[in-house]
Amino acid sequence: MAKENQYVEQIADINGDFPQWYTDVVLKTKLVDYGPVKGTMVIRPYGYAIWENIQNELNARFKKRGVQNAYFPLLIPMSFFTKEAEHVEGFAPEVAVVTVAGGETLAEPLAIRPTSETIIGTMCAKWVQSYRDLPLKVNQWCNVMRWEKTTRPFLRTSEFLWQEGHTVHASAKEAEEETLGMLETYKEFMETCLAIPVLTGRKTEKERFAGAIETYTMEAMMKDGKSLQSGTSHYLGQKFATAFDIKYLGNEGTLQTAYTTSWGVSTRLIGAVIMTHGDERGLVLPPVVAPTQCVIVPIAARKGGVLERCEALKAELEGAGIRVTLDATDNSPGWKFNEWEMKGVPVRIELGPRDIEAGKMLCARRDTCEKVEMPLENAAESVKALLSTIQKDMLEAARVRRDNRIVYADDMDGILAGVEAGNFVKAGWCGCRECEDKVKEKTAATARVYAEGESTEKCAVCGKEAKHVIVYARAY
Amino acid sequence: MAKENQYVEQIADINGDFPQWYTDVVLKTKLVDYGPVKGTMVIRPYGYAIWENIQNELNARFKKRGVQNAYFPLLIPMSFFTKEAEHVEGFAPEVAVVTVAGGETLAEPLAIRPTSETIIGTMCAKWVQSYRDLPLKVNQWCNVMRWEKTTRPFLRTSEFLWQEGHTVHASAKEAEEETLGMLETYKEFMETCLAIPVLTGRKTEKERFAGAIETYTMEAMMKDGKSLQSGTSHYLGQKFATAFDIKYLGNEGTLQTAYTTSWGVSTRLIGAVIMTHGDERGLVLPPVVAPTQCVIVPIAARKGGVLERCEALKAELEGAGIRVTLDATDNSPGWKFNEWEMKGVPVRIELGPRDIEAGKMLCARRDTCEKVEMPLENAAESVKALLSTIQKDMLEAARVRRDNRIVYADDMDGILAGVEAGNFVKAGWCGCRECEDKVKEKTAATARVYAEGESTEKCAVCGKEAKHVIVYARAY
Repeated sequence: MAKENQYVEQIADINGDFPQWYTDVVLKTKLVDYGPVKGTMVIRPYGYAIWENIQNELNARFKKRGVQNAYFPLLIPMSFFTKEAEHVEGFAPEVAVVTVAGGETLAEPLAIRPTSETIIGTMCAKWVQSYRDLPLKVNQWCNVMRWEKTTRPFLRTSEFLWQEGHTVHASAKEAEEETLGMLETYKEFMETCLAIPVLTGRKTEKERFAGAIETYTMEAMMKDGKSLQSGTSHYLGQKFATAFDIKYLGNEGTLQTAYTTSWGVSTRLIGAVIMTHGDERGLVLPPVVAPTQCVIVPIAARKGGVLERCEALKAELEGAGIRVTLDATDNSPGWKFNEWEMKGVPVRIELGPRDIEAGKMLCARRDTCEKVEMPLENAAESVKALLSTIQKDMLEAARVRRDNRIVYADDMDGILAGVEAGNFVKAGWCGCRECEDKVKEKTAATARVYAEGESTEKCAVCGKEAKHVIVYARAY
Repeated sequence: MAKENQYVEQIADINGDFPQWYTDVVLKTKLVDYGPVKGTMVIRPYGYAIWENIQNELNARFKKRGVQNAYFPLLIPMSFFTKEAEHVEGFAPEVAVVTVAGGETLAEPLAIRPTSETIIGTMCAKWVQSYRDLPLKVNQWCNVMRWEKTTRPFLRTSEFLWQEGHTVHASAKEAEEETLGMLETYKEFMETCLAIPVLTGRKTEKERFAGAIETYTMEAMMKDGKSLQSGTSHYLGQKFATAFDIKYLGNEGTLQTAYTTSWGVSTRLIGAVIMTHGDERGLVLPPVVAPTQCVIVPIAARKGGVLERCEALKAELEGAGIRVTLDATDNSPGWKFNEWEMKGVPVRIELGPRDIEAGKMLCARRDTCEKVEMPLENAAESVKALLSTIQKDMLEAARVRRDNRIVYADDMDGILAGVEAGNFVKAGWCGCRECEDKVKEKTAATARVYAEGESTEKCAVCGKEAKHVIVYARAY
């Protein structure tokens, strides 16, 4: 038994030390490793496969929205940033700068992109000439760099991978619709693919993207009650179009300034998956993005016919499009159970001589730890159905967990008590920066998102009339 | 007619001014655009879609070879390069260097990766402990940077996209087999997917990758007779394993130094496709990687039922997995023909009222410009077969073109005359650097690849005994 529990013992207690649990899980399941430069990460094959599944799911959705993938240069002249005043203020302090190249000092230093509004804006100004060129919708999957002081794998690293979509429109209305439409697409993706429920809505001015008119966010609750900003969609109005001169000839013959949007999600999402679903045994991966959806563990593997039957089952499941691993190593079944549980594989099938004789297989669900006996006949169909059930149940379980931890507060003490207990706290807000700052100062919680459509009487801080209800939480 | 020929007129004559033809084609078909920083490119959606198709095809092949995708950091400490003496000598002059980040001067400057042997070697040293960890095979799709003086879109730019595979093995034999196995995989991919025949073999010492024991290359002939190095596979022996301390405990209990390989292809391949198949009308894309494989052009589109029938045909073809565009714009059919020919779409279907009545469609092949009438019944099957025929015929045509332009030479005059006429020239070589340098000096041709398995009597330069036959060519 000692050996069988070795992994569990190696992972810190999720309820006792959540940050250490996170670090243990990401390293021991080989999702990620620390890079040699401080604040960088190496995404190992098991982690990268999750990212590839995320990419495939999002690409299909982007395509439906008429978005095309492209690639823009990594290096941006520093002068580009200064064209949009708020933008440079927000990003300049975090930029990594190339000053030497090809053995020579550069005349103008070049920034490694922290985000690409400026360079894509420059190109769009060239490509957009007439209303016929609109809407223009491009996306790129790439690396970006923001020099951070404190870093954690997936959550905050100096370099990370993301997608950034950029669209150009003829009217404010169309651009606003695109901003909100993409937010809806993201939300549907989060729920359907990652089994993560999200609160969506506007950010306060303070939390807005540098240069945006309006930033919409998705906030997800992690198991420690903290919020993780999982993606944002920005309505940029004419701010970047004016700064980068994106103009088009309207169909009535006059030159018009365009409207733009941008939106993105990053490898942070892998962190969101870990901290939304993980448990004391390690990862719990949603089937849609799990690199291995089903692991087959042979029982009494040396007995005649067992391995062959396992191979045949593997082939059958793969034929149905299921991602399967057959663990035919020399380790004991118990060791394998722990290993694959830690790695979060949604379904484990145990198959031994007696099962085969009885025409059955034992399926263990990672999410609920339940075991179900199922016939070997039509195995692919049963496993597919089970994966689909797991996917839905994981979302539902996450939603219940979160909803049970959304509380209301009338005053600062209430907000503090709420976030201390690991909740999202809804509270009235007068709309002034001073009150927002005070909440952060006293509770370490920030305004995550407007509770859209909700209203209350008083600001929890100053007691004046509340203009909005805000969701406060501590955040990653 | 003037309008219908406008595109053709805009492209320089492929036989008169090949470099200008290339520039015209890449810009006018919107494959690429120049970035704001000198030497950078923006890969536009039409170009990026080709790259995505290349990625999908290669990923499937890598997976079969047991290679897993991962992601390693962009920035590499300068000190890493100096650990392998030849490597630093080869790459240091081309490196772009980050010296400032987060508002502070860095203690150690960081290089933007020109290639990742050093950082991946560092990580592998950590991951490889025992013979059980071997072989280790990882690949990454990423951007790299090499500061170049003269640049051309896809062919040579300061930043480009590529994949770099890195493997670690227990023995020299296994690593050598991997190096050659990957070369074979690349060659099969080039022929099957890009319809480009390649000469494969070793590079001379002078042309070797900085730090490799042996570099294997694929050389493809462009329509101007120049060679394009299309991919390389390097056997690194123990050079990097020694420099980065990649050691493993053998099954007999002693510590052993590992053997490594690396191999890569880049967005250069898009340039290879353009210059292998393109003609006076523009691009000619091989069906396997063409973003649009088939365009449907309605004839007399306003006539009742025509557009509807075109939509139905589109749906039918898409249902069979064909990438289809229906051009329902207001432009004239002639204008559309030119547009889609310039963009290199393999098959154009013309469908008008008379065709529909007769139950037929007119299919125009981009590669041969032939038109074939085919029944509308089972259209998907016919179009699939036609695409497959085009793919094979394009490879065959390219092979014949190339083979007709491989000549032999006995002396320097022969080499010069051969390359001047746009040929690959095979000639004997004694094996000394001096003779290799002389060929370059007198003919501007370089030793592209060993003509493996061939032999001849004399070195074409010094007249001494030939140890090898070399393929000389001018190159991109």
